[in-house]
Amino acid sequence: MVTQKSFKVTTPGRGMINVTAQVLEIVVASKIVVGICNIFLHHTSASIIICENADVSVQRDMEVFMGHLVPDGDNLFSHVAEGPDDMPSHVRTILTQSALTIPVSNQVLDLGVWQGIYLWEHRLQTHTRKITVSVLGE
Amino acid sequence: MVTQKSFKVTTPGRGMINVTAQVLEIVVASKIVVGICNIFLHHTSASIIICENADVSVQRDMEVFMGHLVPDGDNLFSHVAEGPDDMPSHVRTILTQSALTIPVSNQVLDLGVWQGIYLWEHRLQTHTRKITVSVLGE
Amino acid sequence: MVTQKSFKVTTPGRGMINVTAQVLEIVVASKIVVGICNIFLHHTSASIIICENADVSVQRDMEVFMGHLVPDGDNLFSHVAEGPDDMPSHVRTILTQSALTIPVSNQVLDLGVWQGIYLWEHRLQTHTRKITVSVLGE
Repeated sequence: MVTQKSFKVTTPGRGMINVTAQVLEIVVASKIVVGICNIFLHHTSASIIICENADVSVQRDMEVFMGHLVPDGDNLFSHVAEGPDDMPSHVRTILTQSALTIPVSNQVLDLGVWQGIYLWEHRLQTHTRKITVSVLGE
Repeated sequence: MVTQKSFKVTTPGRGMINVTAQVLEIVVASKIVVGICNIFLHHTSASIIICENADVSVQRDMEVFMGHLVPDGDNLFSHVAEGPDDMPSHVRTILTQSALTIPVSNQVLDLGVWQGIYLWEHRLQTHTRKITVSVLGE
Repeated sequence: MVTQKSFKVTTPGRGMINVTAQVLEIVVASKIVVGICNIFLHHTSASIIICENADVSVQRDMEVFMGHLVPDGDNLFSHVAEGPDDMPSHVRTILTQSALTIPVSNQVLDLGVWQGIYLWEHRLQTHTRKITVSVLGE
């Protein structure tokens, strides 16, 4: 059995948005009891990641860390046509993930207690991002 | 066909533990001949990665590199409730992986000769970590 | 339904090679209409990644960034038997990916407009790299 559905998220600019509920809804509707769920982001300047979901300071620190590791406007970069956050956004994406595959058990996403699925927008401006969820199993 | 099994690993603190044999055992028992195997770690301060399996100096150097890239106690971080290795462990996890999907061929994991599957504990203290293995195929 | 095929790529040394066409060919030949496609690289010193496919300056900047983040010959490293680019190649692999899982929709890879699948060779010398593509669905 296979179910596949897409949804869109409009981001307010750089930062993380919890999309666990939207993914879970597709998993539950699939009626698949045991299998896997693939979450795919169709963009190269935002990521789909698993992050700690209990304390918002984790997301804030992650942003601070990435801002130091891949600074906007770094003069290393020549790909600057879309602004100082353009190339850093591509680098952040490659250092994290565009896709996640997670087990489905007992008709739900089998995440750990502290795990949430986040869309991480790397661009400073608002963007509309497309996510495709595929559920395979029986 | 789908098989799904979980197992636990108690880590002695920071470092890598080879879990290839445990994953392979589940793949072989599934009797799936061709397909994929998803290995998922239910935590946000440890990773599941593929690392070179022949020379232990690779793991040691990886630890040294990460210690420099994401130093314990870095004053960038505000999320310090659980100690100086708490937030660095979350960052290390996001810079690596919580899940791997690997081909199954001829009833075994189709890894390269030098590839091993490792649980990478990022916390300094011992932890019990849960891994779920899902095998899909025919 | 499951299809699995491998192919080899000989790299000219460090840099990215677009392998989207080879992966797509396997997906189309599988006649799977909806499902997922797993792309797996059997090596620990090269990566399989999704990168922006429109402007070659993105790949060039990515190389420059990685060269600064994980410098060849860094005296942090003790694993130097195969040369100054040996251990940095393992680190680059772990900071990126050895495997990708992407949705298959309407019998093709469901990539975003700007997403391409790249083999990223991290070693300076030419190598022959094996990629296995598994397609699951209906």
